[in-house]
Amino acid sequence: MQFTAKEICTLLNGTLEGKPDVVVNKLAKIEEAGEGSLAFLSNPKYESFLYTTNASVVIVNDDLTLDKPIQSTLIRVPSAYSSFSVLLEMYNTLKLNKSGIEQPSFIHPDAKIGKNVYIGAFAYIGAGASVADNSKIYPHTFVGDNAHVGENSTLFSGVKIYHDCIVGNNVIIHSNTVIGSDGFGFAPQADGSYSKISQIGNVIIEDDVEIGANTCIDRATMGSTIIKKGVKLDNLIQIAHNAEIGSNTVVASQSGISGSTKIGENCIIGGQVGIVGHISVAKGSQVQAQSGINRPIADEGKKWGGSPAISYQNYMRSQVVIQRLPELERKVDELQRALEALK
Amino acid sequence: MQFTAKEICTLLNGTLEGKPDVVVNKLAKIEEAGEGSLAFLSNPKYESFLYTTNASVVIVNDDLTLDKPIQSTLIRVPSAYSSFSVLLEMYNTLKLNKSGIEQPSFIHPDAKIGKNVYIGAFAYIGAGASVADNSKIYPHTFVGDNAHVGENSTLFSGVKIYHDCIVGNNVIIHSNTVIGSDGFGFAPQADGSYSKISQIGNVIIEDDVEIGANTCIDRATMGSTIIKKGVKLDNLIQIAHNAEIGSNTVVASQSGISGSTKIGENCIIGGQVGIVGHISVAKGSQVQAQSGINRPIADEGKKWGGSPAISYQNYMRSQVVIQRLPELERKVDELQRALEALK
Amino acid sequence: MQFTAKEICTLLNGTLEGKPDVVVNKLAKIEEAGEGSLAFLSNPKYESFLYTTNASVVIVNDDLTLDKPIQSTLIRVPSAYSSFSVLLEMYNTLKLNKSGIEQPSFIHPDAKIGKNVYIGAFAYIGAGASVADNSKIYPHTFVGDNAHVGENSTLFSGVKIYHDCIVGNNVIIHSNTVIGSDGFGFAPQADGSYSKISQIGNVIIEDDVEIGANTCIDRATMGSTIIKKGVKLDNLIQIAHNAEIGSNTVVASQSGISGSTKIGENCIIGGQVGIVGHISVAKGSQVQAQSGINRPIADEGKKWGGSPAISYQNYMRSQVVIQRLPELERKVDELQRALEALK
Repeated sequence: MQFTAKEICTLLNGTLEGKPDVVVNKLAKIEEAGEGSLAFLSNPKYESFLYTTNASVVIVNDDLTLDKPIQSTLIRVPSAYSSFSVLLEMYNTLKLNKSGIEQPSFIHPDAKIGKNVYIGAFAYIGAGASVADNSKIYPHTFVGDNAHVGENSTLFSGVKIYHDCIVGNNVIIHSNTVIGSDGFGFAPQADGSYSKISQIGNVIIEDDVEIGANTCIDRATMGSTIIKKGVKLDNLIQIAHNAEIGSNTVVASQSGISGSTKIGENCIIGGQVGIVGHISVAKGSQVQAQSGINRPIADEGKKWGGSPAISYQNYMRSQVVIQRLPELERKVDELQRALEALK
Repeated sequence: MQFTAKEICTLLNGTLEGKPDVVVNKLAKIEEAGEGSLAFLSNPKYESFLYTTNASVVIVNDDLTLDKPIQSTLIRVPSAYSSFSVLLEMYNTLKLNKSGIEQPSFIHPDAKIGKNVYIGAFAYIGAGASVADNSKIYPHTFVGDNAHVGENSTLFSGVKIYHDCIVGNNVIIHSNTVIGSDGFGFAPQADGSYSKISQIGNVIIEDDVEIGANTCIDRATMGSTIIKKGVKLDNLIQIAHNAEIGSNTVVASQSGISGSTKIGENCIIGGQVGIVGHISVAKGSQVQAQSGINRPIADEGKKWGGSPAISYQNYMRSQVVIQRLPELERKVDELQRALEALK
Repeated sequence: MQFTAKEICTLLNGTLEGKPDVVVNKLAKIEEAGEGSLAFLSNPKYESFLYTTNASVVIVNDDLTLDKPIQSTLIRVPSAYSSFSVLLEMYNTLKLNKSGIEQPSFIHPDAKIGKNVYIGAFAYIGAGASVADNSKIYPHTFVGDNAHVGENSTLFSGVKIYHDCIVGNNVIIHSNTVIGSDGFGFAPQADGSYSKISQIGNVIIEDDVEIGANTCIDRATMGSTIIKKGVKLDNLIQIAHNAEIGSNTVVASQSGISGSTKIGENCIIGGQVGIVGHISVAKGSQVQAQSGINRPIADEGKKWGGSPAISYQNYMRSQVVIQRLPELERKVDELQRALEALK
């Protein structure tokens, strides 16, 4: 795929400065871009690269003023960052534009497959399952019996959707993520062994959710584990049975949410965080990486840190003292001696 | 599937109060149940829902006394919780009652497949491998050369059992869990690089074990990594080479057990716990979530917390003080000033 | 496979003491070895086992002196450990010596497959992808469009290599690891939702790298996420977009490296460590398990511990005091009272 500066300028509805006919065939960071590359400049921190870059074309903000002459052709737009994002997305849409049914694949006679769908080789679509229009099911992906995948969703290679689970529209799930495995529920027996509690609920993933690779979302014991609209989950995350993650909440890699816990909307949960079961975390909460939340959080929009977590401010203060603890102990011992001497 | 209250009552050997002919076709929580639902009430905390629920039938304990009239038909049994669990299990057994060999699947001519087995499409059974009677191997599951799967076990979609590993009877392993990957063993070389130590042992998973999704159990360097009878492992857990997990021990999500460590029986290990290599942890130990065990634990049945872990009681006390550390430091500074003034 | 003591002795260029014709057919630890086993003794700690073992043959160091008579045949070599490692490797090479193309597999007409390659059943090799000579692609493994796998590399069952990613020579990747999933990049919108930032870069895995099971390495937003020559990554690790891991660095299980962070060469990162994004960690750094690195580390070859991490020495000192915190607080209160009394 290659384009002229002019074609891209027209597409972005921008203003061109330089050579309209220069050709670009790849997207690159301004500090790494070579000839034939299209880059962008948004953050003023990187402005110096504008005068040294080999990028053939650079997308910049309308209000940029040049200090000295430059080599690259410029395309001025209201937001260089947004315009570049649009290009990235177009690039990927063209690149990942798969459709059709590869063979061998397994589509149960009772499954429903929509229009313009991609079903990769070795994909498995179970009895009563459905995949709606414009969705992509990559090779080795499993859509269990009576599971449903909405429109315009992508399940990359190796995703497993257990029976009865529901995936909404415009959802992206990355490789080897598991949706609907059994919740971890066992009843202790008198002899020390455990008896399995059957998990008959499901998982519901609402629209516009993106889930990373190797993440696990367990089905509910009864009812549903729910990932609400617009949630973004990173890789290697654990969401236990009957949990609920509120709209537009973001969870970073390797965090774990225990059973029946409800996270409010618009929360930001850092990486490697653990949250206990059966609590609510208020909307807009922000949790520092590696923290442990062991009690309900009712106050909205607050920041938390530590394990067990306290207010972020107090956590930061305590951390500073922790690093001085040996000194502090020494000081207390000296005080004690001084006081003894005084008596 | 639908049943009358009377049919269920007979099945559970209970006593019916209300309409014997009312029909139910789903199981639900008492607080969420609609018409046509079967619910249960065991925990007195939820008793108020009995008077507001729309459940058509509710299973209750024999000794329940009603404060006011109710809509639902009741089935009285000695333990509502146990009876409901039995129904859940029956429901799932009927639901997941797969058998037969789907095509295309790969069964090596030298593999042995028992009676009444389910082999899903795209499952792979290697040379010399065996799958015993009544077991279910879901699509995309890999049973490597000379690996053995016992009777009545279920390997969900995408499970990988490396060569020579052994899975017992009545074992459940959830999607994308890996059994028998190489232990992480490398010998440092003079030039700073590492030379791989070949891992020729295997993994043995005894009977009645359940393992969650995306968990990893590495094969032993030599000998076996052993998961004993009745162990329950959650999702995203790491069990390193030559480790041994004692009978009926339960490990929550995202915990890691390092190489050659032996965990005793009937332990309860919380989520995101780390345990160093080459130690023993005494039977009945309980480890708080996010703790780190960095030394052997010889005392049986004790509770531990923190990283590095100390007794749970001391950990809780220290945590309380940690939150007051800035105050404590301030107080020490004041004492110092006061003492100076006194001198 | 079985060998006489004499055959093994010749292979290792050693000196034989005992019965040259005794036959062995398995490798075992000296403390567990039965008849027909070949064991080794390197660590003097285990020397007592030499007099009790049932191993038919034991490989020992040249300089070993016997205290009493033994049953086993000995093979003396300069380094028993190295010689045994050589045997382990030969054993595994023979055992895992797969080649040929199993059916059904999916090899796109535009893919290139080298000589002496193993392609397992249900493996998927996309358009424009290549697998070089002597490499092994196990069943259910996905090599996306335009992805490249070098020579002599092994991708175990269920590995997913996304489009455009590059895997070098002599690389081993264990089951269900994901290479090239999208980086976790989203731009916050005015309404609280997030807009996906398309991830168009790739992942480059250099030669001699080994990666465990269920690990995730995200593709770069632009450019490459790079795992340099000789790196060893354990299971369940997260490597975020645009990160770079220096040559011969070792990372233990369940650790996470955030976006754009550069780890130097020859570092040793313990298990369950978290490292924030956009920093550099100097070469030779060693990080204690469960630590959190939240700022750049410029000093080479130092040891770090805690979350947030401080120098390992200070961390250990602070940990000791943390366990005494309740006492320390009590002591301060007493001092305060004593001082009041004095005034």
